[in-house]
Amino acid sequence: MGVRYSSLSLCSPTHQNHQSFRLATFTCDTKQKSNFSFYPTDKDRIFNTHYRRVSLFAITQFSICGLHSRIGNLKCGRVKEMETRQGIATKEALNLQSVDQDLVQKMVYDALVWSSLHGLVVGDRSVQRSGKVPGVGLVHAPFALLPVSFPESHFREACELAPIFNELVDRVSLDGKFLQESLSRTKKVDPFTSRLLDIHSKMLELNKKEDIRLGLHRSDYMLDEQTKSLLQIEVNTISSSFSGLSCLVSELHRSLLIHYGERLGLDSKKVPGNSAVIQFAEAMAKAWTEYNNARALVLVVVQSEEHNMYDQHWLSSVLKERHNVTTIRKTLAEIDAEGELLPDGTLLVGGQVIAVVYFRAGYAPTDYPSESEWRARLLMEQSSAVKCPSISYHLAGTKKIQQELAKPNVLESRFLDNKEDIAKVRKCFAGLWSLDDSEIVSKAIENPELYVMKPQREGGGNNIYGEDVKETLLRLKKDGTDEDAAYILMQRIFPSVSLTFLMRDGICHKDHAISELGIYGAYLRIKEKVIMNEQSGYLMRTKVASSNEGGVAAGFAVLDSLYLT
Amino acid sequence: MGVRYSSLSLCSPTHQNHQSFRLATFTCDTKQKSNFSFYPTDKDRIFNTHYRRVSLFAITQFSICGLHSRIGNLKCGRVKEMETRQGIATKEALNLQSVDQDLVQKMVYDALVWSSLHGLVVGDRSVQRSGKVPGVGLVHAPFALLPVSFPESHFREACELAPIFNELVDRVSLDGKFLQESLSRTKKVDPFTSRLLDIHSKMLELNKKEDIRLGLHRSDYMLDEQTKSLLQIEVNTISSSFSGLSCLVSELHRSLLIHYGERLGLDSKKVPGNSAVIQFAEAMAKAWTEYNNARALVLVVVQSEEHNMYDQHWLSSVLKERHNVTTIRKTLAEIDAEGELLPDGTLLVGGQVIAVVYFRAGYAPTDYPSESEWRARLLMEQSSAVKCPSISYHLAGTKKIQQELAKPNVLESRFLDNKEDIAKVRKCFAGLWSLDDSEIVSKAIENPELYVMKPQREGGGNNIYGEDVKETLLRLKKDGTDEDAAYILMQRIFPSVSLTFLMRDGICHKDHAISELGIYGAYLRIKEKVIMNEQSGYLMRTKVASSNEGGVAAGFAVLDSLYLT
Repeated sequence: MGVRYSSLSLCSPTHQNHQSFRLATFTCDTKQKSNFSFYPTDKDRIFNTHYRRVSLFAITQFSICGLHSRIGNLKCGRVKEMETRQGIATKEALNLQSVDQDLVQKMVYDALVWSSLHGLVVGDRSVQRSGKVPGVGLVHAPFALLPVSFPESHFREACELAPIFNELVDRVSLDGKFLQESLSRTKKVDPFTSRLLDIHSKMLELNKKEDIRLGLHRSDYMLDEQTKSLLQIEVNTISSSFSGLSCLVSELHRSLLIHYGERLGLDSKKVPGNSAVIQFAEAMAKAWTEYNNARALVLVVVQSEEHNMYDQHWLSSVLKERHNVTTIRKTLAEIDAEGELLPDGTLLVGGQVIAVVYFRAGYAPTDYPSESEWRARLLMEQSSAVKCPSISYHLAGTKKIQQELAKPNVLESRFLDNKEDIAKVRKCFAGLWSLDDSEIVSKAIENPELYVMKPQREGGGNNIYGEDVKETLLRLKKDGTDEDAAYILMQRIFPSVSLTFLMRDGICHKDHAISELGIYGAYLRIKEKVIMNEQSGYLMRTKVASSNEGGVAAGFAVLDSLYLT
Repeated sequence: MGVRYSSLSLCSPTHQNHQSFRLATFTCDTKQKSNFSFYPTDKDRIFNTHYRRVSLFAITQFSICGLHSRIGNLKCGRVKEMETRQGIATKEALNLQSVDQDLVQKMVYDALVWSSLHGLVVGDRSVQRSGKVPGVGLVHAPFALLPVSFPESHFREACELAPIFNELVDRVSLDGKFLQESLSRTKKVDPFTSRLLDIHSKMLELNKKEDIRLGLHRSDYMLDEQTKSLLQIEVNTISSSFSGLSCLVSELHRSLLIHYGERLGLDSKKVPGNSAVIQFAEAMAKAWTEYNNARALVLVVVQSEEHNMYDQHWLSSVLKERHNVTTIRKTLAEIDAEGELLPDGTLLVGGQVIAVVYFRAGYAPTDYPSESEWRARLLMEQSSAVKCPSISYHLAGTKKIQQELAKPNVLESRFLDNKEDIAKVRKCFAGLWSLDDSEIVSKAIENPELYVMKPQREGGGNNIYGEDVKETLLRLKKDGTDEDAAYILMQRIFPSVSLTFLMRDGICHKDHAISELGIYGAYLRIKEKVIMNEQSGYLMRTKVASSNEGGVAAGFAVLDSLYLT
């Protein structure tokens, strides 16, 4: 199993000399994409990582945090403040410590009201039916009260990468041999990837061509504090979430700064505009138009329970209101029951023609509890409907492919022509290695704190850190089985920590947090003609980086936007 | 106590011959403004009446329903249908019986999503904190799935009355002697009205002038099925609720008809535009401007717990976004603690100058649990802030004043000049009488089913119907005390019943329902100059009119809009 978090990130020249990290100073040591124990809703969680480890020492010191204990959720007061730790460097546009408490309370209240009136909401897990029936059990989505400072140059850099990654995913998807070969060892140890590859093989056998190719991706980055470089975490090619809610958070922050910016010394214009949902809807509508059947629908493949449904509904709503395109929502099991393939390849679901299949489920093993769901996936793949994503787009976003693309000369020889583009892509790649690279394995055993071991099979704290990296690597070396194919090694990224007001369940928590920037990209291609290839808004996610002495702390993540510095 | 529901409605010439009702046919017999057992949130309930009694007989039959038993809430299925009763006349633009079930399900889903995304929400009483903290425990506001048919001529009639009633309230408010004299007997038996009158007397003694007078009223009507006439239930001069949410329901209905109208045979353009919240905010902003202090705020007087807070927040939000006017929310107790009156009459709350006091609390005895709240009310009344409403506007909306204005020649001799206006007002008046009118009392004893006895003290099913009217009138006659001053008699109105889809808590109920139309009116006057006097949108409320054999049934009310026929 295990292609949950699609990733695309390579061994960057900058980080080949990873040994240099030993002498470096770190502010925060994050687990990149460690996961939850249950799949179904992971994709729509705000952070894919639940636990992050933070250096408790001063930033000029280097610390190894190897413990893995999980601590329960933070207890909350109305505005809760964690003890402040000396030495954490924050280069913030705003020093939150200096903000008047009354002003914070006012902003908190206004922000909660704003969220309720403007649909910045999710289903409240504590309320029954809230993941099934719209309109009941609503609660504001978790959000940061104020946008996080982010250098404009790095934001531009990330934005400029979007069309390049869009194109790269498309090219990788067309190289069936590369996908099959790269994933051949993973296939042996990961049943989920194996099933995806089987569908992919069938399509290759059928010589199935996807003339209309729609990609709605999100490439995630962190800003490495020490190197001041933007490093990619992964590219999501399936079910890139929060295009709907992220726009609202940007709007919320602009609105707060319009009213309170003067007192805070902040300018609302420095929150970049965000029209992710409008651009995603436009791309989908264009794909729908290309399909050329006025009666056809967009099928949103959903999980049977979805607490992040309003994010998805925003996209459907914009599709309907701006483009008069209707969506229907079906689970894979329902599609198996109601789906039908006409001889000409037309996909019918409940008797209705489907022009575009948009996956907001199907990325996790738990989305396929029986053969029924796999039949549905295959049925859709065989059809002439536009798949977002197709099976090859899906596979192009896997962690293993991310690592394979990181190998020297792969990008250059197979996928990209433009040298500037290649340089830009290389620049954002964190170090990424296969376990058959014995040199790296030795280095990681020597300095495990500089690496993360990521299993192909994700979903539930499976990432391995610190001393566990060393132990696992030594065990695998000794065993000498195929099990090593289930892992890749990735450079650990140390983003800066900043003081943040995090809003959850109506309560404001003041805490130290780290942020991850996601850049949406929309891509539409009809055979040789690229109809759309653009950067399409952004998502900032911010997560508590608090810690107890020497260990790991439970944290939570919120939606955020950015303030350009 | 009891000036909860402000009313203004007179004995109309049309209904002087109330005996004619005996021969009439009735479809539905409603309790006009019977109340709940607890005050604090009544004003913002969707219907002020919780229980209505319905004729179970065919419309050509007359029925007396005297029972008062309360039955628990209806049990609900996904789309619940009550048994259909033969003989109920509905002249609907749409025959709901013929609507395809699949189509209903689609509309239900879309409507629930729409509500969640567009802020058509309330606090869910079953969730703790939902009445105190914004952003948590949200649920869609109860609403009708489709607008109710309403004759365009009657809608226009109601709209045209708005500026006349605005002006009438203002004139009545200026006649201190009339207010005090009319309420003198009520004062003896109703401690709440008595306290309001005390404040009013103090203002008269101080010769306090309100130069800037702001009225945000709502006049409520029902369409009497038998006489085909629009009859007024009351005018609300304090805390006229739902200006925010009613606009959204109109928008929701328009949106549904844009998408499904063709299949339903309905035209979205026949749902009248509704900009109640924008017009109310504009009136408030103009009053704020007239107060002429750029730093001054609007004070919203609130209850400590408020599940209808989002309706109020919409108004504050529009004030802020469109007019850059800031509101603060305080309870009467907080105002007592933080309020201060400067020698020049300036009202300070928490050190901030208040330009406009907007009451969304203070209309019910339970809003004044101690002397603290009365002190706050007096403090505000003494100030130079614009009160919405002032004590005299508040009193002008009481039931007793409604009845006093109904006396022959009162309108003409004291308050209105224009004969056309007088005729229009008279036309909408239901019969309304004092209990010192022995002729009417005799008639009511003879035909109690044609009357409602309304106590000045409201709040908790205090209205008296049917045989109870007869018994109470006979007892009062025998006792010969002042107790009769606590009641007025009102003609009962029999609106038509129509099949309706009512949405509550994510569940669609198909049931027979009756509707009440509220027309908002905004009025602003600076001394002799009328700055604003207009009809300002509408509110339709629809309520289940179902019944068990021979008795009273529990029902619930939803927000609605109208479809002009």
